[in-house]
Amino acid sequence: MRVAVLGAGAFGTVLSLVFADAGHEVRLCGRRADQADEINERRTNERYLPGIELPPILATTDQQLATDGVEVVVLAVPAQTMRENLQHWQLPAEALIVSAAKGLEAETGARMSELMLDAGIDAERLAVIAGPNLAREIGARMPTAAVVAAYSNETAVRVQRSLHSPYFRPYTNLDVVGCELAGAAKNPIALAVGMIIGRGLGDNLLGTVMSRGLAEATRLGEALGADPHTFAGLAGTGDLVATCYSPLSRNRSFGERLGRGMPVAEALAASSGVVEAIPTSGSLAALADEVGVELPIISRIAPVIEGQISPDEALDALMSRQVKPER
Amino acid sequence: MRVAVLGAGAFGTVLSLVFADAGHEVRLCGRRADQADEINERRTNERYLPGIELPPILATTDQQLATDGVEVVVLAVPAQTMRENLQHWQLPAEALIVSAAKGLEAETGARMSELMLDAGIDAERLAVIAGPNLAREIGARMPTAAVVAAYSNETAVRVQRSLHSPYFRPYTNLDVVGCELAGAAKNPIALAVGMIIGRGLGDNLLGTVMSRGLAEATRLGEALGADPHTFAGLAGTGDLVATCYSPLSRNRSFGERLGRGMPVAEALAASSGVVEAIPTSGSLAALADEVGVELPIISRIAPVIEGQISPDEALDALMSRQVKPER
Repeated sequence: MRVAVLGAGAFGTVLSLVFADAGHEVRLCGRRADQADEINERRTNERYLPGIELPPILATTDQQLATDGVEVVVLAVPAQTMRENLQHWQLPAEALIVSAAKGLEAETGARMSELMLDAGIDAERLAVIAGPNLAREIGARMPTAAVVAAYSNETAVRVQRSLHSPYFRPYTNLDVVGCELAGAAKNPIALAVGMIIGRGLGDNLLGTVMSRGLAEATRLGEALGADPHTFAGLAGTGDLVATCYSPLSRNRSFGERLGRGMPVAEALAASSGVVEAIPTSGSLAALADEVGVELPIISRIAPVIEGQISPDEALDALMSRQVKPER
Repeated sequence: MRVAVLGAGAFGTVLSLVFADAGHEVRLCGRRADQADEINERRTNERYLPGIELPPILATTDQQLATDGVEVVVLAVPAQTMRENLQHWQLPAEALIVSAAKGLEAETGARMSELMLDAGIDAERLAVIAGPNLAREIGARMPTAAVVAAYSNETAVRVQRSLHSPYFRPYTNLDVVGCELAGAAKNPIALAVGMIIGRGLGDNLLGTVMSRGLAEATRLGEALGADPHTFAGLAGTGDLVATCYSPLSRNRSFGERLGRGMPVAEALAASSGVVEAIPTSGSLAALADEVGVELPIISRIAPVIEGQISPDEALDALMSRQVKPER
């Protein structure tokens, strides 16, 4: 099968590697010609996947060349550039289109599948990837499971099969909304976990914030039509746990810096790349307001970043609320 | 209020401290007179809570003295000794009786609340404590949430209020079965997590095994009448995360030793105290057989300990199964 991956960051590059290892012909499209040359000539992408030798992949900066005649197109660009990219890309009419971006559009709170529908992609042809998928571990062929969510079971199964290899095990799921919300909610919860680690507040609170954070994301998901089981699964608990365990996570590392008392501006300057938790916290809080759901953990992340409350105030608020039933 | 705690191990001692900090008169009953003297005279229990100064607590070896005239009795003995202890204790007829033991009786697979009912304790008067409650962190007054589950909401709320303090935040829950099963399932899952850490298999697999392990425990719980949300809450995800993060967890440490290639007998000899995962894996597997639920992760722990399969075979089996839907 021929596959195209649009976006040659860490996750796009590593998904190209998974498809190639699964026996497919892969074209990877990035913006930079020098990066494409590096991938084609040296079989590395040192900036995003240091130390990983890539299988044969055709890298290009030409989107139409990349997607010509392919059966599956993966969209692996940052969530905040997805809408603009969708306006420029010319995607083949018959291909399955798979979003690999985690996060919501900051301005509108839109999920990636909503942007895909807005761009005229047929609901039956779209899918999203979620789950505990740290790119460097996949690049090292460490055992990894993922979720492929789609509205059409046939689409989910086709994408699942195209990605399956001895080290990469995808599960199908028909709850697109739940998988996207769980993947987005992970970011601010991981930032809160980082603050707890930075403040040295212990593993009991860490377990509390992870389970209560997912519980509030689940309530939001249920209000928006998602299946609560999705949040307890790979896209929710699985992704959150992998992110929070990994010292490589930008959201967790950023939270740790704040927890250790670093001012927000300095912590931002020290973060390489995008801290997705920042727009996501605000977007989820706005969505929750619309449907009347409280997000005591997730909604407090944006005010911390904006300097309205301190990390301690955000964490204290969790413990001093009235005692109550778990649900 | 007067409170008695029966069992002066780490968790019994630290619950005594929580009750005392919440303003109650606490009597702590252990088996050893020298330990009682240490608690009464030096306000420490160095063996189980090293470095923690205890508030005023009356320690005794006389169970009837401990429980005379109390409103709440906490049973903080190991799960495997609960039945025998219940036969000997003389518990006050009007008190609320709270189990703080996590785990199932190995021989029968019985939950602690079942043993309490068998011993003639009224369902309306019993409660169980669950959640992310590492004793040493509670002893250091680090922020901690817990679940108090009971069949009677009034009982749950009374126990909740008796334990509430600035650093200890209990939530009520009416799903006794779910809280007990989640607390038990945590042990073998934490052992599997330890094996993954010991083998150096990465955070993606760790997130997968934690979420898939909880998902199979949830399916077992649902078959036995539990609420699936309980497993995603403090008693499930919360407790599992705290246990798996803590290098102090015996189940995780034991799994790490196996993962690093230590033979089972040697790993057992290196473990101080009870490794609850060992009986629990077998008990849960037997329960699951009865109700026709598969436990691919939890049920493989007992065969690893018994030397029937290696840790690698247990972990490989997870990745090589047929790809399928998430639920």
